[in-house]
Amino acid sequence: MRRALRTQTRTTWRPPVSSLSKRTPTRNMLLFSGRAHPTLAQEVADLLEIEVVPTTAYDFANGEIYVRFDESVRGCDAFVLQSHASPINEAIMEQLIMIDALKRASAKRITVILPFYGYARQDKKHLGREPISARLMADLFLTAGADRLMTVDLHTAQIQGFFDGPVDHLLAMPILTRHVKKRYGKKDLAVVSPDAGRIKVAEQWANALGGAPLAFIHKTRDPRRPNESKANRVVGDVAGRVCILVDDLIDTGGTIVQAAEALMADGAEDVVIAATHAVFSGPAVDRLKNCTACEVIVTNTLPIADDKRFDKLTVLSIAPLLAQATAAVFEEGSVTSLFKS
Amino acid sequence: MRRALRTQTRTTWRPPVSSLSKRTPTRNMLLFSGRAHPTLAQEVADLLEIEVVPTTAYDFANGEIYVRFDESVRGCDAFVLQSHASPINEAIMEQLIMIDALKRASAKRITVILPFYGYARQDKKHLGREPISARLMADLFLTAGADRLMTVDLHTAQIQGFFDGPVDHLLAMPILTRHVKKRYGKKDLAVVSPDAGRIKVAEQWANALGGAPLAFIHKTRDPRRPNESKANRVVGDVAGRVCILVDDLIDTGGTIVQAAEALMADGAEDVVIAATHAVFSGPAVDRLKNCTACEVIVTNTLPIADDKRFDKLTVLSIAPLLAQATAAVFEEGSVTSLFKS
Amino acid sequence: MRRALRTQTRTTWRPPVSSLSKRTPTRNMLLFSGRAHPTLAQEVADLLEIEVVPTTAYDFANGEIYVRFDESVRGCDAFVLQSHASPINEAIMEQLIMIDALKRASAKRITVILPFYGYARQDKKHLGREPISARLMADLFLTAGADRLMTVDLHTAQIQGFFDGPVDHLLAMPILTRHVKKRYGKKDLAVVSPDAGRIKVAEQWANALGGAPLAFIHKTRDPRRPNESKANRVVGDVAGRVCILVDDLIDTGGTIVQAAEALMADGAEDVVIAATHAVFSGPAVDRLKNCTACEVIVTNTLPIADDKRFDKLTVLSIAPLLAQATAAVFEEGSVTSLFKS
Amino acid sequence: MRRALRTQTRTTWRPPVSSLSKRTPTRNMLLFSGRAHPTLAQEVADLLEIEVVPTTAYDFANGEIYVRFDESVRGCDAFVLQSHASPINEAIMEQLIMIDALKRASAKRITVILPFYGYARQDKKHLGREPISARLMADLFLTAGADRLMTVDLHTAQIQGFFDGPVDHLLAMPILTRHVKKRYGKKDLAVVSPDAGRIKVAEQWANALGGAPLAFIHKTRDPRRPNESKANRVVGDVAGRVCILVDDLIDTGGTIVQAAEALMADGAEDVVIAATHAVFSGPAVDRLKNCTACEVIVTNTLPIADDKRFDKLTVLSIAPLLAQATAAVFEEGSVTSLFKS
Amino acid sequence: MRRALRTQTRTTWRPPVSSLSKRTPTRNMLLFSGRAHPTLAQEVADLLEIEVVPTTAYDFANGEIYVRFDESVRGCDAFVLQSHASPINEAIMEQLIMIDALKRASAKRITVILPFYGYARQDKKHLGREPISARLMADLFLTAGADRLMTVDLHTAQIQGFFDGPVDHLLAMPILTRHVKKRYGKKDLAVVSPDAGRIKVAEQWANALGGAPLAFIHKTRDPRRPNESKANRVVGDVAGRVCILVDDLIDTGGTIVQAAEALMADGAEDVVIAATHAVFSGPAVDRLKNCTACEVIVTNTLPIADDKRFDKLTVLSIAPLLAQATAAVFEEGSVTSLFKS
Amino acid sequence: MRRALRTQTRTTWRPPVSSLSKRTPTRNMLLFSGRAHPTLAQEVADLLEIEVVPTTAYDFANGEIYVRFDESVRGCDAFVLQSHASPINEAIMEQLIMIDALKRASAKRITVILPFYGYARQDKKHLGREPISARLMADLFLTAGADRLMTVDLHTAQIQGFFDGPVDHLLAMPILTRHVKKRYGKKDLAVVSPDAGRIKVAEQWANALGGAPLAFIHKTRDPRRPNESKANRVVGDVAGRVCILVDDLIDTGGTIVQAAEALMADGAEDVVIAATHAVFSGPAVDRLKNCTACEVIVTNTLPIADDKRFDKLTVLSIAPLLAQATAAVFEEGSVTSLFKS
Repeated sequence: MRRALRTQTRTTWRPPVSSLSKRTPTRNMLLFSGRAHPTLAQEVADLLEIEVVPTTAYDFANGEIYVRFDESVRGCDAFVLQSHASPINEAIMEQLIMIDALKRASAKRITVILPFYGYARQDKKHLGREPISARLMADLFLTAGADRLMTVDLHTAQIQGFFDGPVDHLLAMPILTRHVKKRYGKKDLAVVSPDAGRIKVAEQWANALGGAPLAFIHKTRDPRRPNESKANRVVGDVAGRVCILVDDLIDTGGTIVQAAEALMADGAEDVVIAATHAVFSGPAVDRLKNCTACEVIVTNTLPIADDKRFDKLTVLSIAPLLAQATAAVFEEGSVTSLFKS
Repeated sequence: MRRALRTQTRTTWRPPVSSLSKRTPTRNMLLFSGRAHPTLAQEVADLLEIEVVPTTAYDFANGEIYVRFDESVRGCDAFVLQSHASPINEAIMEQLIMIDALKRASAKRITVILPFYGYARQDKKHLGREPISARLMADLFLTAGADRLMTVDLHTAQIQGFFDGPVDHLLAMPILTRHVKKRYGKKDLAVVSPDAGRIKVAEQWANALGGAPLAFIHKTRDPRRPNESKANRVVGDVAGRVCILVDDLIDTGGTIVQAAEALMADGAEDVVIAATHAVFSGPAVDRLKNCTACEVIVTNTLPIADDKRFDKLTVLSIAPLLAQATAAVFEEGSVTSLFKS
Repeated sequence: MRRALRTQTRTTWRPPVSSLSKRTPTRNMLLFSGRAHPTLAQEVADLLEIEVVPTTAYDFANGEIYVRFDESVRGCDAFVLQSHASPINEAIMEQLIMIDALKRASAKRITVILPFYGYARQDKKHLGREPISARLMADLFLTAGADRLMTVDLHTAQIQGFFDGPVDHLLAMPILTRHVKKRYGKKDLAVVSPDAGRIKVAEQWANALGGAPLAFIHKTRDPRRPNESKANRVVGDVAGRVCILVDDLIDTGGTIVQAAEALMADGAEDVVIAATHAVFSGPAVDRLKNCTACEVIVTNTLPIADDKRFDKLTVLSIAPLLAQATAAVFEEGSVTSLFKS
Repeated sequence: MRRALRTQTRTTWRPPVSSLSKRTPTRNMLLFSGRAHPTLAQEVADLLEIEVVPTTAYDFANGEIYVRFDESVRGCDAFVLQSHASPINEAIMEQLIMIDALKRASAKRITVILPFYGYARQDKKHLGREPISARLMADLFLTAGADRLMTVDLHTAQIQGFFDGPVDHLLAMPILTRHVKKRYGKKDLAVVSPDAGRIKVAEQWANALGGAPLAFIHKTRDPRRPNESKANRVVGDVAGRVCILVDDLIDTGGTIVQAAEALMADGAEDVVIAATHAVFSGPAVDRLKNCTACEVIVTNTLPIADDKRFDKLTVLSIAPLLAQATAAVFEEGSVTSLFKS
Repeated sequence: MRRALRTQTRTTWRPPVSSLSKRTPTRNMLLFSGRAHPTLAQEVADLLEIEVVPTTAYDFANGEIYVRFDESVRGCDAFVLQSHASPINEAIMEQLIMIDALKRASAKRITVILPFYGYARQDKKHLGREPISARLMADLFLTAGADRLMTVDLHTAQIQGFFDGPVDHLLAMPILTRHVKKRYGKKDLAVVSPDAGRIKVAEQWANALGGAPLAFIHKTRDPRRPNESKANRVVGDVAGRVCILVDDLIDTGGTIVQAAEALMADGAEDVVIAATHAVFSGPAVDRLKNCTACEVIVTNTLPIADDKRFDKLTVLSIAPLLAQATAAVFEEGSVTSLFKS
Repeated sequence: MRRALRTQTRTTWRPPVSSLSKRTPTRNMLLFSGRAHPTLAQEVADLLEIEVVPTTAYDFANGEIYVRFDESVRGCDAFVLQSHASPINEAIMEQLIMIDALKRASAKRITVILPFYGYARQDKKHLGREPISARLMADLFLTAGADRLMTVDLHTAQIQGFFDGPVDHLLAMPILTRHVKKRYGKKDLAVVSPDAGRIKVAEQWANALGGAPLAFIHKTRDPRRPNESKANRVVGDVAGRVCILVDDLIDTGGTIVQAAEALMADGAEDVVIAATHAVFSGPAVDRLKNCTACEVIVTNTLPIADDKRFDKLTVLSIAPLLAQATAAVFEEGSVTSLFKS
């Protein structure tokens, strides 16, 4: 049965193109930035020769975050860059809210760029009745609407497996070792891990530096007081060598500075500290400034305020790596090949 | 080890194009209509200059619904229009079954168009042990395979948040106020809400009509008997004014007709009733026909049979709005901008 | 830092028992019934010596269904019985809404009892671009909050696999064959399937009846017009035998009545029709009343109105089977053992 | 084939009870508190005559939150109380992490108690490209492992439908109206909503206060600057009456204080401000202290520091309500009945 | 507040194209093959004029499977062909691992091609406490990352409904009947089902062969010992006819060989065995070689080693059908139309 | 309207107990074993003084696995023990099928016991386009129906985070160190890791052995050929000490045997090899038998056939640990406390 319908007014709207029913989709790359590290986003945008999407973001009086994009994002290929800098929970929540807004505004694909992945150190239960916060973060991003993650130098590579989707795990080591080779390549080097748990990474450094000998610091760290530590013996031979002391991040700097002292005490010629993530909490800057190391090399995955910079600090930019990987993801090219020798 | 395979026959089939391994995808917009309101779908299709996809749909002898699309839908951008008209559960179930068929037939994206969203009034638990049927509907559509919803004037805007995905919430108010302004723009107007819970919408009307004063009817409604109501005092000043009595829908018409009487009793010059959804159940038509209002303005989000039409009824078409939004979704353009100034 | 809090009033409420912090949970069986087949629910409740939970259920003026339970259901073991009788989409939607209300009211476990499972015949794609509605139903129940299903004589047993959770698939055959054996046990019997696709069931009947010979009707049925059919040859030897013509359901009765005629034409002594589900749509009652079969045996999985009853119709009650299975589920006993000889 | 196994040592461990294979489970109620509002948790625990579970919680140097429970929680019925006080994102993240730890430590059921639900005001898209943060919060809690929510006076009741599971929505109105009736019951009252969107709540107050007349303030609020507002006309008759100005929360206090001024200007005898949630951001305390209202009544769903308390402020405790509801949930009793007159 | 950032080095990387921010995506078809049936994959690739993607796959010493694709797969339209040949669990696990690797490497869409779907015979619970392994397989593929399935002649068509997504169910019958018609078209034929449960398929054969008469073998098969069976009476008339004995698969061959003997004993002129899937376990080849049938016709959905081939065996290739369907899926064309007329 | 129903027969079935509607649930612990390591399951059952549930399990002719439980499992607390021994994919698939059968048979809770967790070494992408098979396994178990996992000495502890639910990660180290202390406690010990990546575990051993010095072997291992390796320098001082060479598993034994040789070459007094999982693939037994180590200590998490046992092999039983943890899980006691002191 046909039901009749006669309407009094019929607007004479016409579709914008003559034949609407078929079209070849185009894809639009849009880069979004939270408020945690806007200069890094700007640097990536400059390299990609695009603009960061204008965004309104502020805190309500009680601290709730408000976000709104000032331009249409429908159908775009969205890249949402936020580094988990301090105040870290604000940074994470802001990124989750941005993702939710993108999902509801019909972004086609959402890639979450985490130059520094917060809570990565809580990647397992050290004791019973603890959370696995690194997995929780992966699930929160998925729930908010993330299709894929891009991140740099995870605390442990297994965290890739916490996310149910593609993860582009970028490595800053080539950037750091290039600098080390240029400056210290003619010295007798040793690569030293400040912690038994991270020798695997040191081993990769040793290979990248042409087979330098390995050592590590044997110490005990109470898992419930991770910012305190006590260095013990140096295991391995470091006398007379320039020691490259490598870690993924420097938080309060306690562990790594004590490791540097131990190396000098064991006869090292000099100590160079290299780490990807400059968390630099609390006493970190004072400790590093005054320690025996001759240089501290980090990247800008996290913002480093002017008053946290000091003479022997070298900051290498991670932006070219992020820009290349973003372009490869957008162009559906290979990210793996970025790390081929 | 290679296992040998010799087959007796090898058909000489060739792929349709010489180089199959790469192609530029094209996207195809297809509009589907359930049986609840085919004339609206046809009107939208006409505006978009496309055809509604031929579909076989009927009821089996025991009332089970059968649906099959008569053309290939593989890879299409599907828009499935069904208004939740009476018999409402049939309309909903038919739409769910259509979505299931589209999902299994490899539609690329499924947008569900709900000019009237059924069960929207059960959007919270008024009492313990009640369902939240409006959330249930959103979940049922998601389960069946909906990627996104498009709907008009939800009973409460929060229902957008019931669906886990993009919702395009279209507003009929510009269509309605344009008509009111043209016809009553020179009178002293007041905007009146028939219910304390809907003054927010009346406030938006008041703004759209250039800052007309607001009033509302203060009454008590038993949540377990929502079709019965008793009007009370008019709150606000309406004497000597043409009152625009606004609501999202007119069901049995009891509330709104009593409100109109109360306004006239309070000295209103005239009453105009305006609502988006003409549910028009049971005694609605008789009540409206005989009430003191001088005009009843609705849209055709729901079908209005000939015998439900009466002299002072004005039906404005929602089709141009749906067509514009559909085109914007298909073209990945901005829907938000449809409501600008 | 401790934040001070001084409140002006502190109510002297006390918990109901002295030591609240530990308790032994008890479980409460509650039986709920939709409006489709209340007498069956009542019969089950009587056998279980419990009451059906008082429930407020009605339709709003536009057909939207409202449900509210009149007693607390928190923590209960809920059994929600609704047979998918006509109007079938109302029956299904009401059951979904009841499940949603139970979930939100904190029922501990929700078992959905479907004496007749709607849309079971659409259990595969007969043609391209069709839905698989039987799977869709399973998913809708899961989404609404069902933990488990209980059902009787599914059209195909594979439908058990459509639900992601436990399904208790009850068989009415023992009830039906007990009646047949008592009344026709001394005759020469043959078991006949009216359709090539259902001989497997007939084979089970044949075994239950002590190895009676099998036959079937070879006909063609257009999948798009399932209520029309044309019977062809009888395959198998039926001359001089009382033929038990078995099916899972009788809808319009066309197929089975034509099968009965064909059997009589092939020399059968008599024909007895046996089916679990008495859908009885349209011309079914007239056809059965006037056909050559001497008895029509069904169960009451679906309601049979007084005006659909006729002399040679025998209705066997399914309630004892449902009651036993419900008790076994509640008591965590074995349902499988209900079908052991 | 049986594979032989001979082990050198076999420890003589014995299970703790002779017959392990059957047991009657007991359920254990455990109350957990985040660091946002520990005194409220303590008050609830005192009323329930239990202890808050000892918990280690602190921030790492870079702000990452660490949580560990000091006692076994396996199999418990967990209640996790955290009010979303400032710094609000810390409070939410801490609660999510606590839930994750409980899930991984095998808590049987996790009830999340949110005396104040953060981000509730972002419950819909006011503009395009906004998030629906209140839905996002519900999803984050679900993802972390919440089985159910308990909360007090949601900004809109529809937020219940954002969570896919049971929500106990408690109402503070009986606590507040009891106080108002005791102190102002003999006066001529009017109930006033400071905002057109919240008159429904005012209507419930009016009923609870025996049918007092209703009024509201008609103003415009820019959705992108929600902490700024400008009051306009009073709609309704308030002259000579004690106006009870009711809202769900007081944030910066701007809206409500302007409303109070407008009421006094319109001839109100006196103004009493009543709200459930004392957010009290920025200038709120100064504004309230100095405004024309004679009393400000709130509850302690949020912590109120000593320096935020002032003479005409009355704080009523929400703890008895939370304790009763918690007991009812644990005992599987009715929460609905808590609100029966 | 803007945070300053000055980095020491800024690499002069440039994006590969001048305007990166917009592009028209192209889609790339890639065909992957597990190790179970590489020649079939090669045959499909040859027909599509593409290469199978080079893949490293081997077993670790303890049997764990390792897979890695040797070329970038980002953004591709992946087709993963693996037939579930013996050792069947290896074949399934390898395919799951391949899908996981594709998902994590950002394949755009993953179509799983299962020429033979393992565990299809466990499609329901024959007895209590059994798995429904065919549903489990569908869920495992979904979990690993499959977007869609393509398969040939499922044991029961309902298995399509086990997968939550599109399934292309291809039919080998046209290939088999074309061969039969060419070779036996001038004889008097009968179509025989070896099992009551599969007559529906035989009926489709009978129609395809121009209305040949139907028969079936009535036997009992213990569901717990499915490889053993005992044939009973022939139901239907087969004397003097060439019997086409049809089944979906031949496993040990016991059932079908006994059926052939029974047909000859009942006076059949000759017997031709036709089945889609040549599982050929244990004694199958010996039984078939020595049985009374004059020809055994199968397809190569499963690999058939040279020592399993015998004189009267005819192997028809399924590769053209798979190639056509793959092309249709890639081109978003109609698969349904492959089976028209 | 009440529909009448008169049924001809009403069975006089009565529920088994007079008052069915309330009951106190009891919980039943049932232990299930796959076919991979039945003696370990038997040993656990003996310690718990229960029986392994009788189960029918066999392979069909084509390798498909069939499982059925011979007793009712409805409502039970199920523990499903299967070690991932060779053939490993069979073992995993059998366990998945057992879980599916338990889920569909209404087991109340399913704990999956994996004494050895298969594919744990593929816990991250070493190279692009690899799977993360250890995450895939966790997801497959979740999909099949696992509520929780129990496992021993995961290759990396992060794998706990791959499962979305509780994981009881048991440690064999106390069992192994107890043996070492008893036998070698009076010697000068050193703890040696055969691999830079596993020094963290060696560090825990060193602590458990009272602060023994640490060393490790610095070698390169090609991630694509993980069973081949080449030992390099010893880092740390081992001369004159009994070296406890520790690893989580011994697969082909190549790495660890070369490490032992290197230690002896560096002047170690003696070498003791200790590992939890005796995978013992290919040449492992020959290598270990003939190497310079004086003892090889393992547990029976995997079956060790008689012909794989040799004189200096010591097998310690893991069964008491599994039994204790199973009892704690069933009794809702603390598993964490099993590893205290």
